[in-house]
Amino acid sequence: MVIKAGVLNVTGYAGAELARLLYSHPEITLTTVTGRSEASKLLADVFPHLACYELTIEPELSASVDFVFSALPHAASAKAVAPLVRSGVPVVDISADFRLKDQTEYANWYGTQHPAPELLAGAAYGLTELNRETVKCSNLVANPGCYPEAALLALAPAARAGAISPDVIIDAKSGVSGAGRGLALSTHLGEAGESVSAYGLAGHRHLPEIVQELASYFPPVEAPGPLIPKVTLTPHLIPMTRGILATCYAPLMPDWPAGGPDPQAAIREVYAEFYAGEPFVKVVDQPPATKQTRGSNLCLIYPTVDHRSGRLVIISVLDNLVKGAAGQAIQNMNVMLGLPETMGLEMRALYP
Amino acid sequence: MVIKAGVLNVTGYAGAELARLLYSHPEITLTTVTGRSEASKLLADVFPHLACYELTIEPELSASVDFVFSALPHAASAKAVAPLVRSGVPVVDISADFRLKDQTEYANWYGTQHPAPELLAGAAYGLTELNRETVKCSNLVANPGCYPEAALLALAPAARAGAISPDVIIDAKSGVSGAGRGLALSTHLGEAGESVSAYGLAGHRHLPEIVQELASYFPPVEAPGPLIPKVTLTPHLIPMTRGILATCYAPLMPDWPAGGPDPQAAIREVYAEFYAGEPFVKVVDQPPATKQTRGSNLCLIYPTVDHRSGRLVIISVLDNLVKGAAGQAIQNMNVMLGLPETMGLEMRALYP
Amino acid sequence: MVIKAGVLNVTGYAGAELARLLYSHPEITLTTVTGRSEASKLLADVFPHLACYELTIEPELSASVDFVFSALPHAASAKAVAPLVRSGVPVVDISADFRLKDQTEYANWYGTQHPAPELLAGAAYGLTELNRETVKCSNLVANPGCYPEAALLALAPAARAGAISPDVIIDAKSGVSGAGRGLALSTHLGEAGESVSAYGLAGHRHLPEIVQELASYFPPVEAPGPLIPKVTLTPHLIPMTRGILATCYAPLMPDWPAGGPDPQAAIREVYAEFYAGEPFVKVVDQPPATKQTRGSNLCLIYPTVDHRSGRLVIISVLDNLVKGAAGQAIQNMNVMLGLPETMGLEMRALYP
Amino acid sequence: MVIKAGVLNVTGYAGAELARLLYSHPEITLTTVTGRSEASKLLADVFPHLACYELTIEPELSASVDFVFSALPHAASAKAVAPLVRSGVPVVDISADFRLKDQTEYANWYGTQHPAPELLAGAAYGLTELNRETVKCSNLVANPGCYPEAALLALAPAARAGAISPDVIIDAKSGVSGAGRGLALSTHLGEAGESVSAYGLAGHRHLPEIVQELASYFPPVEAPGPLIPKVTLTPHLIPMTRGILATCYAPLMPDWPAGGPDPQAAIREVYAEFYAGEPFVKVVDQPPATKQTRGSNLCLIYPTVDHRSGRLVIISVLDNLVKGAAGQAIQNMNVMLGLPETMGLEMRALYP
Repeated sequence: MVIKAGVLNVTGYAGAELARLLYSHPEITLTTVTGRSEASKLLADVFPHLACYELTIEPELSASVDFVFSALPHAASAKAVAPLVRSGVPVVDISADFRLKDQTEYANWYGTQHPAPELLAGAAYGLTELNRETVKCSNLVANPGCYPEAALLALAPAARAGAISPDVIIDAKSGVSGAGRGLALSTHLGEAGESVSAYGLAGHRHLPEIVQELASYFPPVEAPGPLIPKVTLTPHLIPMTRGILATCYAPLMPDWPAGGPDPQAAIREVYAEFYAGEPFVKVVDQPPATKQTRGSNLCLIYPTVDHRSGRLVIISVLDNLVKGAAGQAIQNMNVMLGLPETMGLEMRALYP
Repeated sequence: MVIKAGVLNVTGYAGAELARLLYSHPEITLTTVTGRSEASKLLADVFPHLACYELTIEPELSASVDFVFSALPHAASAKAVAPLVRSGVPVVDISADFRLKDQTEYANWYGTQHPAPELLAGAAYGLTELNRETVKCSNLVANPGCYPEAALLALAPAARAGAISPDVIIDAKSGVSGAGRGLALSTHLGEAGESVSAYGLAGHRHLPEIVQELASYFPPVEAPGPLIPKVTLTPHLIPMTRGILATCYAPLMPDWPAGGPDPQAAIREVYAEFYAGEPFVKVVDQPPATKQTRGSNLCLIYPTVDHRSGRLVIISVLDNLVKGAAGQAIQNMNVMLGLPETMGLEMRALYP
Repeated sequence: MVIKAGVLNVTGYAGAELARLLYSHPEITLTTVTGRSEASKLLADVFPHLACYELTIEPELSASVDFVFSALPHAASAKAVAPLVRSGVPVVDISADFRLKDQTEYANWYGTQHPAPELLAGAAYGLTELNRETVKCSNLVANPGCYPEAALLALAPAARAGAISPDVIIDAKSGVSGAGRGLALSTHLGEAGESVSAYGLAGHRHLPEIVQELASYFPPVEAPGPLIPKVTLTPHLIPMTRGILATCYAPLMPDWPAGGPDPQAAIREVYAEFYAGEPFVKVVDQPPATKQTRGSNLCLIYPTVDHRSGRLVIISVLDNLVKGAAGQAIQNMNVMLGLPETMGLEMRALYP
Repeated sequence: MVIKAGVLNVTGYAGAELARLLYSHPEITLTTVTGRSEASKLLADVFPHLACYELTIEPELSASVDFVFSALPHAASAKAVAPLVRSGVPVVDISADFRLKDQTEYANWYGTQHPAPELLAGAAYGLTELNRETVKCSNLVANPGCYPEAALLALAPAARAGAISPDVIIDAKSGVSGAGRGLALSTHLGEAGESVSAYGLAGHRHLPEIVQELASYFPPVEAPGPLIPKVTLTPHLIPMTRGILATCYAPLMPDWPAGGPDPQAAIREVYAEFYAGEPFVKVVDQPPATKQTRGSNLCLIYPTVDHRSGRLVIISVLDNLVKGAAGQAIQNMNVMLGLPETMGLEMRALYP
């Protein structure tokens, strides 16, 4: 029996990537796609690479489906998926709407009241490798932001091992597809090509999500109130289309590793064990390049100790539209539906 | 009277850029260029954009000149310029040979004994804005590395002001021309295009140079021995040709600024004052893009306080072949020869 | 029963792409790979995106296989595959060795005597859409060059329909992966990035192959001797990694279409009929972009009449490493082995 | 005495490039700039690379100037410059408004009646190398389109020499800055990066301009009515910012060169003589790359005979924003004002 899926807002890059990847999924059939600005057009006319589909873009979900992916903007997404979730349709939401547990924090960062706060408690944070059991039991999964995906996979093992202090810098580099398909001078090839720049220095919306999730990996503190890691996130725009590389820095704990072995060897072992058996996260021996993951659902991680400064430096790379968005969403769907986690996601990176 | 200049090893990117820029210098005539691998070819045949010259590439300096730029590799450079310096010819050395004051440090990082250690004491570190007076009196100026150029211009004002602790991270992003014109898989367009990666994580040769110079900007310490700043440098390869962006991080001193004004305003004032009147360093109001400096001798600096983490974040951008190499070298030459510092260097960035 | 395949010279881009694509093929297992320069290394160490394999690169084919792909350079390829072919192993040769039927022509263009001329007569020219029946019956298939692939698919329908004179210009644009993974200044990102140039103006080796194959699509002539189309091929290097776009020009025959219908409508019908039912060639309504085929085995073709000049202009695009090399080779293998022609080749283009 | 210049519509790429180049012109001071959408902003805020200016963008020319450049869109440009021209202010118009001599042709191609047809007869077509004397005597010069600039410089010598038939194909490749700074999906880095596509196949607006000008270089015909060359122009979008490469094809006349010398040598001599002494057009010995002209006012031309097909193939490259727009405009201004033609235009290409 085929499982019918729908994609809300297929006309952005994350939505189109979902359609592209679902085409190769053996158990899922994409049967309905929505998109306001391009409604009534053929999907194949908007995206020639999706000419394999004979689907018309509709203004709203028009038929019943077994699973829904939402690639709508924040706020619009919560409004659209709330009735679906309430009626029992499992949903992966690629927007930011169900990532932050605290609706006040949401209002502060997104400038609007949360449209469906009663669903927040039941939503799982869909970083599958870190929350597999919660995802499995959830009907509503919040797909992580692309920067948090790269940063949390890089930092969680060291935090959990007690190897670093909660004083973290994430210097992230992203291709322009992360900024979406909307038109802006910042993604005009004439401006963004042959150039690199930083943005979001006053506070990127992915920051609170990183702080919230990262907190749980550090050892509990005795101080009153929970630990709040000190995190600086600096995103940069790179003259390429796909890919994120996050360079993460944190001071090694002075007494780590206990018993005095070489920190470099100890940290490699921490990461190797943490991700042993994971199909989509690989700890590598050489600094990885984003191109090694382009088009695949892999995240490659390279942890290393800067012995001169006593810092841990961790590099992670992934394709922001796959492991950072659509691939991660399908991975979550597989877990939610009890399908093999890697189903439909075994493609290798398009290299070169 | 025309000043005759020579360029040693004109066939790399720094050498060719020197030739390109010197063509527009009203007081200098490039009269001789050397290069082993392409010796006896016309400069115009190796570099069609330099067809304005009628020069043959020679194996060695063949005629007397009034000024020499060396773009030779390290060790070879010191060997070649030592006799010139001794005979009184003023030299700017773009190689690393005269940057480190300590010849043991040099041997450790470059894997060879210094060929002319007796010249080290008299060599000036040619970051003109920070060492103008020393450069003016020197006959041998060590042109800074491109990463140190970007990092030191970014960090010196805050260090001098006592605003930051000597615990610094420099996350640097460079176009591939920084790796030179030699052939390597890492700069093959099929590999480097549409990709970003980190390198030099075990220790980049520009690190000791940064540590050495940065130390002098921090307030003196009472501890025995000099202050050695704790510096992590992570260079990244960006899919573009020219440009460096350095994102620098350091903790604000807890008691800074004294008297309690807003740190953001205070830090802006520190930078504005430090670079007031400098023709080639501009403190800007928005995060800059490398393209805004491409082909120019400018360095744009954007300091900002991350109030959530108490860190200072400073972004600097420059063209690695101009302000990071050939332009800086000509700026030094202007100062050494008593010419106006901006002469021949007033071109605007090639944008877009 | 699994079919075991081997790839000769896996270390170039075509070889690595074969390995990448074969990983997704449900009936084939890649069991042995060769490569002189990287012999004894793990495939995964040379190509991190192929970490899915646990194969060591061997100097020569070490085990018996059911099918061989050769991605060796010309001459070396014929030498290596000749004994295999003689012993009955089916082979697709990606090199140029078995494309030209005339060994004198081969010697003229490749500067060496053909190493196995006795195999030429039995070799099929593996442009599957145009030679499906021949490929099906062959044990040795010569995979087309990437430019011929794009040009012949674009021109064959019009030639066959008698719509154009045999006076053809092919202005081709290719990403740098077409030049291979070897190191050369022409593919250095600093040189090839942000630039476009033509090459091979004195005669590109793909020209005789185009002339040979194209001749058979034109109506027979009465003149003594066979028709030899007049073909100009101008390849250009484009600052991107993958993709070929061929812009083909030919004069419309003065009396075509007979009976006087609109040439534009007539030509569209010719192409639609010619490629009706073809899974990998699509006639499109808008000028296509190479990115619409990147990573897929598709060729998109857009024919249009320039009514001002009476010329037919045909644009074709494909991924030079897939439909222009490895994908085409697997398509040929599928036909040779009696497998469904699209097996393992249904991936959609990686867009954006 | 300083000459005061104004730029109408400084906010597009051609306008900004005029401002950039004029900054280095020793005799001209840019005193006023206009631009509707960004009016009242500082030029330095819109274009950080123009921070050397202290100019506010004004809605209309507010002060008297000695010379005006218009970078307005067509129709708007003629309306704005007509009163200036009538009042005696010399103008170079970068728009298309005064390029076509025939106002019906203008209306057909631009979809609007010409706003100032009475000025057409007096306007010079500002391809300086081909029309120097006319430009010198004109008060209103129509700057050529970027494609016509590249194509006419490539084709005029052969046409004038009687070497080719008037049956021409121009296959042109342009960086995205040719499409302007306006926002469009076609110049989004995510879409245009790593891709090449053709456009304007139904007829590009630069075509009639090429036909009009090219006609005058062919020998007169006896047939009734003037010769109208048969021209196909196919522009392509290349994933880079600046640069045009035009590959031009035309059949060699059967009886050319008279007396039977080698056509290749004869054609090289034709071009060498035609451009002897020209400071900005160079006939080169190797196929040129656009990067060799980036940022300079040079056009490099490589003519070669394809002896197999009896065609002449001519490659020309230039920077579309300099020799194809702003540099050409300043060259025209120099001629109009009696200044040395190369003044302010001697910068070398930014390479790499």
